[in-house]
Amino acid sequence: MIVVMSRNATKQEIDNVENKLQELGFKTHPIFGEVKTVIGAIGDKRILNTVNITTMPGVESLVPIMKPYKLSGRELKQTPSVIDIGGITVGSRELAVIAGPCAIESEESFIETALKVKEAGASILRGGAFKPRSSPYSFQGLQEDGLKIMAKAREITGMKIVTEVVDTRDVELVASYADVIQIGARNMQNFRLLHEVGLTSKPILLKRGLAATIEEWLMAAEYIMDAGNENIILCERGIRTYETSTRNTIDISAIPVVKELSHLPIIVDPSHAAGNWKYVGALSKAAIAAGADGLIIEVHIDPPNALSDGPQSLRPSKFKQLMEEFQLVASAVGRSVR
Amino acid sequence: MIVVMSRNATKQEIDNVENKLQELGFKTHPIFGEVKTVIGAIGDKRILNTVNITTMPGVESLVPIMKPYKLSGRELKQTPSVIDIGGITVGSRELAVIAGPCAIESEESFIETALKVKEAGASILRGGAFKPRSSPYSFQGLQEDGLKIMAKAREITGMKIVTEVVDTRDVELVASYADVIQIGARNMQNFRLLHEVGLTSKPILLKRGLAATIEEWLMAAEYIMDAGNENIILCERGIRTYETSTRNTIDISAIPVVKELSHLPIIVDPSHAAGNWKYVGALSKAAIAAGADGLIIEVHIDPPNALSDGPQSLRPSKFKQLMEEFQLVASAVGRSVR
Amino acid sequence: MIVVMSRNATKQEIDNVENKLQELGFKTHPIFGEVKTVIGAIGDKRILNTVNITTMPGVESLVPIMKPYKLSGRELKQTPSVIDIGGITVGSRELAVIAGPCAIESEESFIETALKVKEAGASILRGGAFKPRSSPYSFQGLQEDGLKIMAKAREITGMKIVTEVVDTRDVELVASYADVIQIGARNMQNFRLLHEVGLTSKPILLKRGLAATIEEWLMAAEYIMDAGNENIILCERGIRTYETSTRNTIDISAIPVVKELSHLPIIVDPSHAAGNWKYVGALSKAAIAAGADGLIIEVHIDPPNALSDGPQSLRPSKFKQLMEEFQLVASAVGRSVR
Amino acid sequence: MIVVMSRNATKQEIDNVENKLQELGFKTHPIFGEVKTVIGAIGDKRILNTVNITTMPGVESLVPIMKPYKLSGRELKQTPSVIDIGGITVGSRELAVIAGPCAIESEESFIETALKVKEAGASILRGGAFKPRSSPYSFQGLQEDGLKIMAKAREITGMKIVTEVVDTRDVELVASYADVIQIGARNMQNFRLLHEVGLTSKPILLKRGLAATIEEWLMAAEYIMDAGNENIILCERGIRTYETSTRNTIDISAIPVVKELSHLPIIVDPSHAAGNWKYVGALSKAAIAAGADGLIIEVHIDPPNALSDGPQSLRPSKFKQLMEEFQLVASAVGRSVR
Repeated sequence: MIVVMSRNATKQEIDNVENKLQELGFKTHPIFGEVKTVIGAIGDKRILNTVNITTMPGVESLVPIMKPYKLSGRELKQTPSVIDIGGITVGSRELAVIAGPCAIESEESFIETALKVKEAGASILRGGAFKPRSSPYSFQGLQEDGLKIMAKAREITGMKIVTEVVDTRDVELVASYADVIQIGARNMQNFRLLHEVGLTSKPILLKRGLAATIEEWLMAAEYIMDAGNENIILCERGIRTYETSTRNTIDISAIPVVKELSHLPIIVDPSHAAGNWKYVGALSKAAIAAGADGLIIEVHIDPPNALSDGPQSLRPSKFKQLMEEFQLVASAVGRSVR
Repeated sequence: MIVVMSRNATKQEIDNVENKLQELGFKTHPIFGEVKTVIGAIGDKRILNTVNITTMPGVESLVPIMKPYKLSGRELKQTPSVIDIGGITVGSRELAVIAGPCAIESEESFIETALKVKEAGASILRGGAFKPRSSPYSFQGLQEDGLKIMAKAREITGMKIVTEVVDTRDVELVASYADVIQIGARNMQNFRLLHEVGLTSKPILLKRGLAATIEEWLMAAEYIMDAGNENIILCERGIRTYETSTRNTIDISAIPVVKELSHLPIIVDPSHAAGNWKYVGALSKAAIAAGADGLIIEVHIDPPNALSDGPQSLRPSKFKQLMEEFQLVASAVGRSVR
Repeated sequence: MIVVMSRNATKQEIDNVENKLQELGFKTHPIFGEVKTVIGAIGDKRILNTVNITTMPGVESLVPIMKPYKLSGRELKQTPSVIDIGGITVGSRELAVIAGPCAIESEESFIETALKVKEAGASILRGGAFKPRSSPYSFQGLQEDGLKIMAKAREITGMKIVTEVVDTRDVELVASYADVIQIGARNMQNFRLLHEVGLTSKPILLKRGLAATIEEWLMAAEYIMDAGNENIILCERGIRTYETSTRNTIDISAIPVVKELSHLPIIVDPSHAAGNWKYVGALSKAAIAAGADGLIIEVHIDPPNALSDGPQSLRPSKFKQLMEEFQLVASAVGRSVR
Repeated sequence: MIVVMSRNATKQEIDNVENKLQELGFKTHPIFGEVKTVIGAIGDKRILNTVNITTMPGVESLVPIMKPYKLSGRELKQTPSVIDIGGITVGSRELAVIAGPCAIESEESFIETALKVKEAGASILRGGAFKPRSSPYSFQGLQEDGLKIMAKAREITGMKIVTEVVDTRDVELVASYADVIQIGARNMQNFRLLHEVGLTSKPILLKRGLAATIEEWLMAAEYIMDAGNENIILCERGIRTYETSTRNTIDISAIPVVKELSHLPIIVDPSHAAGNWKYVGALSKAAIAAGADGLIIEVHIDPPNALSDGPQSLRPSKFKQLMEEFQLVASAVGRSVR
């Protein structure tokens, strides 16, 4: 940590800061510049509340040197993690493609979708039973009935299933059905929920918050890992910017940045990022080319009648055609789609 | 609702959209322009999933005419709401000033702070017992012990107390202690939590999410009101922008905008917006001048040793001096601070 | 255009708006809803200052139906434009790769770079003679001497050259040397400069402004086209967001969105978007996979001693290796790099 | 400057960086931490291109200690600057209120407006002769004829006049008419234009760019000051964020932040920030309360027929009423409006 003293800091103020740092267990190294003094403070004290040093008289700012995350970072674990979902891996040469409708609406339609996305090459089935909707008047999901339908679809198709949990009270229930538990973008900093899923042994699909920095995202992963669960798949799903021609702006750079900072695998959700099925193909190919470890795509057998997210859902036939195109791009970067 | 058909839409596509709209219960009024056709659809069908119409062939876009919120909007209730907290009102001529530390750290320090902010003129006491912290390694709050300390401070000072709830499982507990329940920025779209506090009868302090639009914020209030609790105080606390010289960018315009769109009162949290105690005075005065119904300010008796948010906390003496300055600005706009 | 009247608009106010619209030459079609009235106004009156209608009593908002751009949009010209730069095409099956240093520093180093990027497969040479730098104390470019060096490099290598103009007074000079004139991100809304380059016959590389919407970008192209020059190549170079791990956030979605809205070709500048050479490979591949028509990449023979943008510059050897990888991705989407 | 070496940096890499820093004229102070090494580099070398050090092997990041601006910062000049405009001061106890229409449309209407805003208490007259409009089809201003009208209004009313320049070729002309030259938001990083107005002796009203950081804004002022003109008035006019209920988001925090970092005065443009006349009163009061040194407000005698920015223009009667309210807020913070 580096403490930058302001131009007008007195000798006494500099001494006070040094003393405080030493009291907190740091070794201090002041450097007296022509204009300002900076104090280097050695010691990895992530747990200490050092931010308060900025309130001491004469302090201008505080520059951290160490990353605030440990378990999710590359500093402690240099080799990439591969997450295993009952034989399907995320983070290996083979890309994981997760597909399915936004919400589970009925057993019949869900199983029909499942069969079609499987045929097209998807290896994991998505579907929402508990839906976080921005309006209380929108369809909120079939809840446990939805989970039962998912389980049935797994039985029939042999696919693994991923579904979202939105309440600490439902974690046990969801974990009893799902192969992968999803934490949605709106809950990325619902720390109690992160802790709770961290107590399960299921792989966690951790979506990036709508306005979360990459550092905050890795800190969210840190919460889950700190609770004991290291099986985390990060998912970029678009961030909020001023541009309105897409629902969100997909942050493709997050892929190489996460690969540099963390050992965790990262997949991309082009459907929520774009909010428009027409852009899903282009964004998926971009994600694969940039090094993503997988995709999660919304597919619905009848988008105009979907109860949620119809505009961004692909029809199964379009999804199938795109999967073939994805395979070509994956090959070009030394990966495969299945 | 207006449906805009694309330039190349066929007669058949236009007919299909009209038929679909009629099927959903709308009366339709097509207008055939020189280049494009638009279809006016009459009927307030907020509950219907009309967004899917954009997936129909030939549709370019869909323009809503009605606001998506009803209970929180001005359309149904035109007079401003005044929230009563055991005799203290929010939304009346008198501004509500809420003050106290970010986190409750000990009984002694909390009660000392309470006495000092009361003396300075604050009418409600804030303090965090359950803290949502971005790092799992930071202090997470005293939990129920913190609530007990708050209750004791209320007993001693006669002040009302506001504290945050972060988990559906704690709503009942928190409601049994608090006079006002806070929903933090990170939980503004934790819809299950919104629903749960909506089942209580306590006033709710609903902070705006870090990257929430004003419309999304009012939809969050709608969730609480839909569950039966109409006692909501909105709280602007800064939004995320590209500017880094403050922790967040306070959106002062949100005050007149909310006053126009909603009947709910709105207060401002300058401490979290700025992230720096030095700016709290200027931002508080700006909020009062722009028409805010109150302030929530972090005050700590010893900021350099605070366990949370030290840099943005005022010392009690500074807070007292500012309260006198706030009174002058409040008078200038026909309000009073106490 | 649709005018939405507010809930409380009177009959008289509605009549006034209709009369005003008719006066402006529109045919009006009022639709009386249960709660609000909307008035459809037929007529493509982009030149009229219709925005003022929102100031009329009783008006809530105004919804445009037609896009504000004509020449740059797909509505008038449906087939994609291919820009010809002396035999090199942008917008065809073959991707255009532009490479070179940020600033021209000396004849020797520039020509060495030119030869190396040519060998690696670049077809156009970039280099800055007039540099817009955020600090007045930074290197501002060699100006006309830089242009002469570029011309010499063209002579030696046979490559086409692109360089930026930052002042209306220099347009004639720059046009006399360059094969393509660049309008930088900071000048995207320097309308006089847009007009001036629109009077030349040189192809224009129009970078997207740092915080420009896609619509504003197409309106900037409209300025150039309105002045008579239709040879425009759009260039996405990252937008400003709250995320700080990259210099800007590349908006990959802009590629399919621009392809839908406009007939103009679009290329991508991964170097300025990332601000870090390590991410240039991943972002370039993403751009190709998403359908970009080309790339513009910073290459410097000695990045640590570059006078501008060293951190985001590739060494020629790395560029060469990446070009081979780009070819694979281009093939996968039916394109080629050279 | 602090150079942070990466965890895996070798002894040789650390030595290389130290040597390079010494070569550039810095005194170096390495601090060897448990995990990483950081190198303190003493010397204020703003002109050097030190950013390239980040390209050296083993370097993780570079942390500047000194601000990049000198002339506009508080470090060299600690007392606030007061700008004199022929007897009217900006930065003194008395607030400067600038008012007038967006564009000059005719002599008659401009002079009528001038007389009315003068009567209401404005001391400086605004009006656009050269208009930067986002569409080439919008009214572009009366150009020199507009300047002549302004001069006539000055003669009649005795008010000072401020108008925008958008092209280096017009600086001499505009300077020959205007008392204050405005640099608009879109030209904040038009460095050649900044340099050119820096060569005049007229006070400059420097608007903040739509997506400019405060640091970039001060660097723009630095360009003008570096050219020799120290008479700069900063103007906050709203920044681009994701929120769409106002045209831009006014950054009220910029007022105290600028006051801390710079000695230059700062005024606020609530009209462009809000894009809606209804919010101008609230935002103006917020600006005054937060410590702004003045306001620039759009006033038009007939907003529905304005050729530019009608929706955000106040009628003279409303402006007059607000000026009385502004006086009350100004008094409350120890200032006055006239």
